[in-house]
Amino acid sequence: MPEHTPAAAHDAVEVIIAKRDRSELSDSQIDWVVDAYTRGVVADEQMSSLAMAILLNGMNRREIARWTSAMIASGERMDFSSLSRPTADKHSTGGVGDKITLPLAPLVAACGVAVPQLSGRGLGHTGGTLDKLESIPGWRADLSNEAMLAQLESVGAVICAAGTGLAPADKKLYALRDVTGTVEAIPLIASSIMSKKIAEGTGSLVLDVKVGTGAFMKDVARARELAETMVGLGTDAGVHTVALLTDMSTPLGLTAGNGVEVAESVEVLAGGGPADVVELTLALAREMLAGAGRDDVDPAGKLADGSAMDAWKAMIRAQAGDPDAPLPQARETHVVDAPSTGVLTRLDAMAVGLAAWRLGAGRAKQGDTVQAGAGVVWHARPGDAVTEGQPLFTLLTDEEARFERALASLDGGYDIAPAGTPYTPQPLIIDRVS
Amino acid sequence: MPEHTPAAAHDAVEVIIAKRDRSELSDSQIDWVVDAYTRGVVADEQMSSLAMAILLNGMNRREIARWTSAMIASGERMDFSSLSRPTADKHSTGGVGDKITLPLAPLVAACGVAVPQLSGRGLGHTGGTLDKLESIPGWRADLSNEAMLAQLESVGAVICAAGTGLAPADKKLYALRDVTGTVEAIPLIASSIMSKKIAEGTGSLVLDVKVGTGAFMKDVARARELAETMVGLGTDAGVHTVALLTDMSTPLGLTAGNGVEVAESVEVLAGGGPADVVELTLALAREMLAGAGRDDVDPAGKLADGSAMDAWKAMIRAQAGDPDAPLPQARETHVVDAPSTGVLTRLDAMAVGLAAWRLGAGRAKQGDTVQAGAGVVWHARPGDAVTEGQPLFTLLTDEEARFERALASLDGGYDIAPAGTPYTPQPLIIDRVS
Repeated sequence: MPEHTPAAAHDAVEVIIAKRDRSELSDSQIDWVVDAYTRGVVADEQMSSLAMAILLNGMNRREIARWTSAMIASGERMDFSSLSRPTADKHSTGGVGDKITLPLAPLVAACGVAVPQLSGRGLGHTGGTLDKLESIPGWRADLSNEAMLAQLESVGAVICAAGTGLAPADKKLYALRDVTGTVEAIPLIASSIMSKKIAEGTGSLVLDVKVGTGAFMKDVARARELAETMVGLGTDAGVHTVALLTDMSTPLGLTAGNGVEVAESVEVLAGGGPADVVELTLALAREMLAGAGRDDVDPAGKLADGSAMDAWKAMIRAQAGDPDAPLPQARETHVVDAPSTGVLTRLDAMAVGLAAWRLGAGRAKQGDTVQAGAGVVWHARPGDAVTEGQPLFTLLTDEEARFERALASLDGGYDIAPAGTPYTPQPLIIDRVS
Repeated sequence: MPEHTPAAAHDAVEVIIAKRDRSELSDSQIDWVVDAYTRGVVADEQMSSLAMAILLNGMNRREIARWTSAMIASGERMDFSSLSRPTADKHSTGGVGDKITLPLAPLVAACGVAVPQLSGRGLGHTGGTLDKLESIPGWRADLSNEAMLAQLESVGAVICAAGTGLAPADKKLYALRDVTGTVEAIPLIASSIMSKKIAEGTGSLVLDVKVGTGAFMKDVARARELAETMVGLGTDAGVHTVALLTDMSTPLGLTAGNGVEVAESVEVLAGGGPADVVELTLALAREMLAGAGRDDVDPAGKLADGSAMDAWKAMIRAQAGDPDAPLPQARETHVVDAPSTGVLTRLDAMAVGLAAWRLGAGRAKQGDTVQAGAGVVWHARPGDAVTEGQPLFTLLTDEEARFERALASLDGGYDIAPAGTPYTPQPLIIDRVS
């Protein structure tokens, strides 16, 4: 991490024009503009113009590293060095049916590595980890830093809301990017994610960079660029960082929503669950264990022997949740039958994610509430045989009026080919960047 | 001018992303975003991000034309059809020592064509026409639309402040561009200038597009692109429009400031004055007369016979000014002598403009006052022989403390070559675009 000298005086227009005209920004310009924006000296309309210039003209590795450390310097840093165990964290760029954090955190804890998972709520079609966990009766997302540390020591895993003290510059900038068409800038995505993870103080980090129709990154080249940028940032900051590029053209598992994803995660912790969820959970667990220097432990055994489930229950109880209480059920159900007999050859992650969102599982804008029981369950995955008239999807919501738009988003979102059509499965894990 | 249908509902982020991703904006998107920005529905931080995307990704001719007409539609339009004479206006993109509007407007009026010259105050090193005229005791820039029309009928020329009713979208957008590094976008420059000129209602228009160190456009290619864009916009809107590309690597005439430029303009109106100022005034006058269908009149004769001077005095008096009163003099004077004997081969417009600005002739930010007597007078032009020790510049200001920084900006701003060094004058008028 570069040393932060006191910010020299710059001018917002000077910094904007430099990036607009394809110059490299100096360390001093970056430190100044991030700090001045956080303090309100650089106005929103200046930062959004700079963000657009960054999106269109890029930043090099040095600029991105400096931008990231300036965002870290805008707030507090956490310190896990007092813990008796090493720490490992995971970040996913967001996908449909991506409940992996739920079984993964207790699984890795059961292997002796502490998992401090600061998460967010969802916006748009991909859902949020906290939204899913909040479907568990009693469970609370908000913890003080002290409570979080104590739980990491006692249970070994915590999934909670990120406090406002970490990288406040990022919080302000993210909200701005959301309304100014500047979300899709790799330097800004990478520095946003990594500033929080580095400030959080994890010792090692595994990134799950999603690629495909349901992901933020639609093509492998851009996903790899993002992964390489983030791995570089983490490594430069002394955090052992690895990224997996994983498929998000098909949704993960058989469920997308809140309570339904908790239930599926519990199946995995019980030793069952869909094969793809198990595969990705184990792959990420192995990376986290290796990053924390514990690659001697086999996580598959911790699923089989029930110790991951024990850690899950302890983790939920530590945050006032009842892991044995029934999960909320949606009031209304609508089943979509398979229109023909054959092989399901495509199930589009974006179509499913949009349907779950429209059913009430996600929010349209910050502050909206989500329905704990809403979501989509699919009864076949690509490669599976289906029979005309069998249930293909079950749609869940508390409000019947939501079915129509959810059904519209599923329309054209899957293909059934005649029986016997050959189907080549696509690998779930596309690449590894370290 | 396209018809304006009621604005369809769009979303700011959608419009920003379209331009960011190099799509053409639709008529409906442009109408909506300009109108919504004027009404405050699109926020400053959204418009600045869009402006940066436009700057970096451009707009085509259709988009620029639609953007211009949307800005015109944001306010009122004037109508000069009740006048007994045709109208012609001139716009300069701004240069150092560019006092041409002062002799030009009364000269063209003396030729029987009405000149409605809505002008602005200066910001930065190029000075503003209204600032210059305000050095005349009593002269007032603010006129009602009715007073302006009456003066156009009685005197034939008016130079006054543009009312707030013309293209309010442009007024708001220009202020935003100024602080967000998005001034230098040709589509936005062209639509800003042309929306006001078209809304003003002139029948013909001559554009003086400056090119060189002291101008906004530093190279001929970009100046020509701007000129062609503006001529296209004017023509499409039914305004007879012609542009001259003129040199601004050397400042115009022998003075830069406020009162000093009025005095030089009066010399031209009296039949004298620097050759380059006379040349450009006559060239622009001929274009304005041709555009208004009066190319039968020779403007040079109107300078010689005193009728242009009569029109000047009538124009100044109609706005409460005293054309015969002494002009304010600066309290402090500093003379820079020629450091060697030889030929002045270069006099840099930016260096002179910056010096005049630092002496108090211009303002650093909107709302600053300017000094009526401040400025720079130079005693030789490129190609002239100079003798060591002769006065080369006279610096004028009310505040002695300003000399130091003004002198620093002149440093390196001129070259004196040994006597006998051949000097090839550059043409003042570089090109004509129609």
